Amino acid sequence: MASLDTVLKSIDDNLEGAVERLFNLLRIKSISTDPAYTDDCRKAAKYLVDDLVSIGFEARVADTTGHPMVVAHHDGPQGAPHVLFYGHYDVQPVDPENLWDEPPFEPRIRELPDGTKQMVGRGTSDDKGQLMTFVEACRAWKAETGELPCRVTIFFEGEEESGSPSLIPFLEANRDELKADFALVCDTGMWDTDTPSICTALRGLVGEEITIHAADRDLHSGAYGSAAANPIRILAKVLAGLHDENGRVTLEEFYDGVPETPDEIMEMWNGLGFSEKEFLGEIGLSNPAGESDRSVLEQIWARPTCEFNGIEGGYTGEGFKTVIPAIASSKVSFRLVGTQDPIRVREAFRAYVRSAIPGDCSVVFKEHGGSPAVHLGYDMPAMKKAAEALKEEWGRDAALTAMGGSIPVVGDFAEFLGMQSVLVGFALDDDRIHSPNEKYDLKSFHKGTRSWARILEKLAN
Amino acid sequence: MASLDTVLKSIDDNLEGAVERLFNLLRIKSISTDPAYTDDCRKAAKYLVDDLVSIGFEARVADTTGHPMVVAHHDGPQGAPHVLFYGHYDVQPVDPENLWDEPPFEPRIRELPDGTKQMVGRGTSDDKGQLMTFVEACRAWKAETGELPCRVTIFFEGEEESGSPSLIPFLEANRDELKADFALVCDTGMWDTDTPSICTALRGLVGEEITIHAADRDLHSGAYGSAAANPIRILAKVLAGLHDENGRVTLEEFYDGVPETPDEIMEMWNGLGFSEKEFLGEIGLSNPAGESDRSVLEQIWARPTCEFNGIEGGYTGEGFKTVIPAIASSKVSFRLVGTQDPIRVREAFRAYVRSAIPGDCSVVFKEHGGSPAVHLGYDMPAMKKAAEALKEEWGRDAALTAMGGSIPVVGDFAEFLGMQSVLVGFALDDDRIHSPNEKYDLKSFHKGTRSWARILEKLAN
Repeated sequence: MASLDTVLKSIDDNLEGAVERLFNLLRIKSISTDPAYTDDCRKAAKYLVDDLVSIGFEARVADTTGHPMVVAHHDGPQGAPHVLFYGHYDVQPVDPENLWDEPPFEPRIRELPDGTKQMVGRGTSDDKGQLMTFVEACRAWKAETGELPCRVTIFFEGEEESGSPSLIPFLEANRDELKADFALVCDTGMWDTDTPSICTALRGLVGEEITIHAADRDLHSGAYGSAAANPIRILAKVLAGLHDENGRVTLEEFYDGVPETPDEIMEMWNGLGFSEKEFLGEIGLSNPAGESDRSVLEQIWARPTCEFNGIEGGYTGEGFKTVIPAIASSKVSFRLVGTQDPIRVREAFRAYVRSAIPGDCSVVFKEHGGSPAVHLGYDMPAMKKAAEALKEEWGRDAALTAMGGSIPVVGDFAEFLGMQSVLVGFALDDDRIHSPNEKYDLKSFHKGTRSWARILEKLAN
Repeated sequence: MASLDTVLKSIDDNLEGAVERLFNLLRIKSISTDPAYTDDCRKAAKYLVDDLVSIGFEARVADTTGHPMVVAHHDGPQGAPHVLFYGHYDVQPVDPENLWDEPPFEPRIRELPDGTKQMVGRGTSDDKGQLMTFVEACRAWKAETGELPCRVTIFFEGEEESGSPSLIPFLEANRDELKADFALVCDTGMWDTDTPSICTALRGLVGEEITIHAADRDLHSGAYGSAAANPIRILAKVLAGLHDENGRVTLEEFYDGVPETPDEIMEMWNGLGFSEKEFLGEIGLSNPAGESDRSVLEQIWARPTCEFNGIEGGYTGEGFKTVIPAIASSKVSFRLVGTQDPIRVREAFRAYVRSAIPGDCSVVFKEHGGSPAVHLGYDMPAMKKAAEALKEEWGRDAALTAMGGSIPVVGDFAEFLGMQSVLVGFALDDDRIHSPNEKYDLKSFHKGTRSWARILEKLAN
């Protein structure tokens, strides 16, 4: 334990430098969904490779047909496990930019009246701050002991926020290089500021974009109003028809493969002290919007859903324009659980949309990723060791939770590399990921780094 | 008739100069809905004043709290009527600009394979090209006879495309100056390329913008999906609920004041040879989208309607973003007929929207103009004289039509100046007003100018 204590002390002593290294990474505008930031994505990958090389990793920027991957290797002691650590260096777009209190790519530390220190900026929590907790843990181990407790492969992706188009081809092409005993994935959150968490289930995702085409050009609503098909009206009917009055998704066979949550899991969840009122109240709401016969925790962890992530059509500028637009479009996503099949859900959605539009109109579909839900066994040895390490760092049991979001890479690791994952992360519910004023608590970053240092040591024994 | 013939010849001989004057006006980007073009609106008003002064009018740019008006006066012979001519110098926005074949503010003449010459550019038809037909008719009368057949007041507005916020206050404040025996309004169209038309009924308009507010910030759809209210989903339900399965508007008491079209009018309309198939086919459609028990001509001329002119919410950029937005908004307009009351329609709409949103969400309304429908008597003497003049120019009877669009100023002239209007215009259905590649046939411009020369002479006798 002597060396672990030294490593932890090194992490404490060098926190300021760790923050500065993270800020350098945060200043790079690696927005993967927008082609305007292609060069920035590569710059972020290059920055990480240089940093990993400085620690002693053999690291490279690995090209794909999209944004590059970062792959790095470091040996470990004979007999120690080989772990693959996954994170993503790309970030979400920042719009609406005017809602940010400070420029999104100029990270800073903000101190709240109660003394809480938060790092603010796009990517602080999702996922640059999180992935750097692991890098800093490795740096401390190397600095204090000259080695790492396990053999480590690091794998950073640059397309997580844009559907990971290059991921599966890359996993297939680099199977031997990437295959490890198991993966450590850092893209999830804590239960609360004092309670660590290991995520054991993730919802899947189907992303679709639909564009309804009506007349062959924009029309004056006076001259054509009511006689000519209005694609916004059609789109509204299509979207409105996707939920029934009880909040259930209406697509045919949508609930095939959706399991009931086992009683013992529901019991554990009920013991977490989750408050629906607080959860919704914190974002200014009070009425659960999902299936009316399910609790909020079930709605977000264990039930599938359909959400509308964007909609656009006609005149949206200042003032008014009496136009009937030629097209209207929406981005729609489905969260999946159990064994729901992304392909069948996409097909059912498309069949429904086609059936719902008038014969003289048409619809164009665009696919934005698809992945099934993932369920990780509670009895996996690596998960148990991670839970022990987390308990030592945080002084309380890690909550075994599910997660409403998708981390498709976890399913891909299982399918293409035959590798299970342990999901540990230090984000908080109020981190405003994907929103303006994203933040990551300095405590998450600091104790997250310490947690990884402990987990690496625990896994080795 | 000698002087009329001279005037008509003068118009023929000077067509090229008339086109060049119109093009100078078209090059001014007088988009009234967008504050970025405020200076251009004033520039257009100034250009018109200078032109009218050069003809011999006493003219001025008249300030309002918005874009200025143009007011000009010219005496007429003792005993001749006093007419007010109305047009508007502001134009619609040009987006989506990438759909224009040529820059929208660089007007040009395009010759079709069949020899038809068209002036192309924003405002060619709506309404700069139309208003210049009257100005050019006055110029020709002055050039050839040194006077005008009637006493003429010219009144050009610069806010027609943005709900005319300054119009009523201006009419009230300048009642004595603007009151004439009747108004001539040039903002309507021909029946077809060879048949002139006088419009005897106009639908009214209620414009509304609604913004649904849900959570107090954008949310990650993984973390909050299904539990948190999604304003796009709410908006879709609200909009989808506004029409029933037969295309009727569902608002309470919406059809109060909607008259059945008299048999003799329906008979006249049926005699016009209108083809639903051609009307819809020309814009790439085939199914009438309005009330299923009404003909297309009834739908656009004699029935009220509800249209969605714009919708916006969430992420609408490239790629995908799994966000639940905080807000979503739509621009909605109602076309009114008969004695439907714009105030009651607006109230019924707002009551419906309020009742349709969840208790923890809110809605903000923004008003974008409102006016009742206008019905002009077929037996008005000025209208009969205009019809005679049109018949002489075009060699066939003018069609007495209704119009789906609104020209609120006609109602305002009646209400605030006690003045009826005669609606004569030379636009064509395929002029693409409010759309990319707006055009105005050179024939419309040329024979429109000749028509006004004739109408002025006819009204004087």
